[in-house]
Amino acid sequence: MQDPLSQTFSALADPTRRAILARLRRGEASVSELAEPFLGQMTLPGVTKHLKVLEKAGLVTKGREAQWRPCTLNTEPLNDVAAWMDEYRAHMEASLDRLGEYLKTVTKPATTPTTSPAPTDDHHG
Amino acid sequence: MQDPLSQTFSALADPTRRAILARLRRGEASVSELAEPFLGQMTLPGVTKHLKVLEKAGLVTKGREAQWRPCTLNTEPLNDVAAWMDEYRAHMEASLDRLGEYLKTVTKPATTPTTSPAPTDDHHG
Repeated sequence: MQDPLSQTFSALADPTRRAILARLRRGEASVSELAEPFLGQMTLPGVTKHLKVLEKAGLVTKGREAQWRPCTLNTEPLNDVAAWMDEYRAHMEASLDRLGEYLKTVTKPATTPTTSPAPTDDHHG
Repeated sequence: MQDPLSQTFSALADPTRRAILARLRRGEASVSELAEPFLGQMTLPGVTKHLKVLEKAGLVTKGREAQWRPCTLNTEPLNDVAAWMDEYRAHMEASLDRLGEYLKTVTKPATTPTTSPAPTDDHHG
């Protein structure tokens, strides 16, 4: 048994599953509607399997009506991911600052020497 | 071959690996320092395996010096996770608003009757 956060991360660790979630951001959809864009690369049971992983992780909810059982996006498990990410926020910002500083030192020598020396009069000759 | 974002999510889908990252937030550490808190539940090769997953995902960098090869946290792959999460931000906020609205309707009948009656004088008796 995986802990809920691990289960969420596992569910997100697949491009098909993330594409299904992205589709559901635009609104609810039936299983066949969700499967359609993938049927070139995988079978319907293949897509259904991915959907089940998303359902188990609580990221997708399936309607209860017998005929039309639309799948809906449920972002609740993402709150825990956001909370987890927050713990790394300070570190990520520091790392972006370091990258910024590094980029400054890398780009400076390339631009400064070409702009600062006294202009040559080559073009006048 | 997993795409980088899937690889990051996979690496994060384990409580031991997340605990290792959390430890590295406090500063660099040797493999044995990182392994120590887990040796009750798993072997050193077990911890090393988890570390390799984190290294492959680019979340941990190992120093190059022969003797002391400290592990360092690298949050760069988390930028892609943050970017991915941003796409769900609007949806998550809407869902939290709905939860807030729901909690209001649920807590209202429960709190109003218990707080409004006149205070009792039991403690004076």
